[in-house]
Amino acid sequence: MASEVELKAKIGSKEELAKRIIAEGGIFLGEVSQDDVYFRHPCRDLRERDEALRLRREEGSCTLTFKGRRVGSGAKMREEIEAGVDDGAAAFAVLRRLGFEEAFEVRKKRSTYSLEGAEVSLDSVEGLGEYVEIELVLKDGESGEGIRERLYGLAERLKVPKEGLTTESYLELLASKSSSSRASK
Amino acid sequence: MASEVELKAKIGSKEELAKRIIAEGGIFLGEVSQDDVYFRHPCRDLRERDEALRLRREEGSCTLTFKGRRVGSGAKMREEIEAGVDDGAAAFAVLRRLGFEEAFEVRKKRSTYSLEGAEVSLDSVEGLGEYVEIELVLKDGESGEGIRERLYGLAERLKVPKEGLTTESYLELLASKSSSSRASK
Repeated sequence: MASEVELKAKIGSKEELAKRIIAEGGIFLGEVSQDDVYFRHPCRDLRERDEALRLRREEGSCTLTFKGRRVGSGAKMREEIEAGVDDGAAAFAVLRRLGFEEAFEVRKKRSTYSLEGAEVSLDSVEGLGEYVEIELVLKDGESGEGIRERLYGLAERLKVPKEGLTTESYLELLASKSSSSRASK
Repeated sequence: MASEVELKAKIGSKEELAKRIIAEGGIFLGEVSQDDVYFRHPCRDLRERDEALRLRREEGSCTLTFKGRRVGSGAKMREEIEAGVDDGAAAFAVLRRLGFEEAFEVRKKRSTYSLEGAEVSLDSVEGLGEYVEIELVLKDGESGEGIRERLYGLAERLKVPKEGLTTESYLELLASKSSSSRASK
């Protein structure tokens, strides 16, 4: 029942930022394709409650995740509960039978690095482009403020411009993009 | 997305029936403690729809199961969709956050045998006593009637009296027991 705190930003070049992460002492952990399906609840507006239910399928594994509403301001902090599942299609079918419907899909290729306890991901997101995401997990007794400062400090060291940082999720970025493209038609 | 067909009956002695299963060519597969939690849906009456959502925890594993409504008469036939989960407590927490509440718990010790393609279980169910359950999985192209006949044939060979056979689930047996004990107070 960990809380994750994260920031992301659109970037120009993954390669350039990858070099900077390594130069700062980061370690490359791997690259995977992630296919995330977000669900609508049969009787609750998860979006209005600022919650999310996600089934993530990546090579060889599948994870069911509940994300709680965001707490505080600045870097995004929210409860995250995750359970690995051994059969993504079956988990999907169980959710469908319970009345959950597919609301949105987010597909990306993610390269992950470990940097001073943070997880730094370089993402190529279908429909959005290249992003960096910096994530820390709040430990027991740690203050939200302290962890947010660490996050902003890491972003600065990686030369990610402060004005480009966002606390929005890919889901929200894609949703607002699709609604603005509808509006402009 | 298999369909299971099953019958159960209250029995006098597990040991006697275990010997009969072995004498009929059955193979002992193992014994486990199973702790099943059934959930209430936040906006659907699963019981009225004759559906169920179960989280089963047994030694070293945890499974999320959706059971569809029963089809036809005679031996119980219903769709069953199962996904193994690597963290029972996390799966439980995700369901709770989505508004599912614990409706009933069924705890039992189960010895399982394989007998001519059927799974025969000898169960000591907390609050109910000793039961035998005989289960077959419907294969593609197989008729419901043929499989029901096989089930009744197996029950007969194991000398389980026909009048004792029931298609009720442990959940239902426990629920009707608790409501009749409330009524008699």
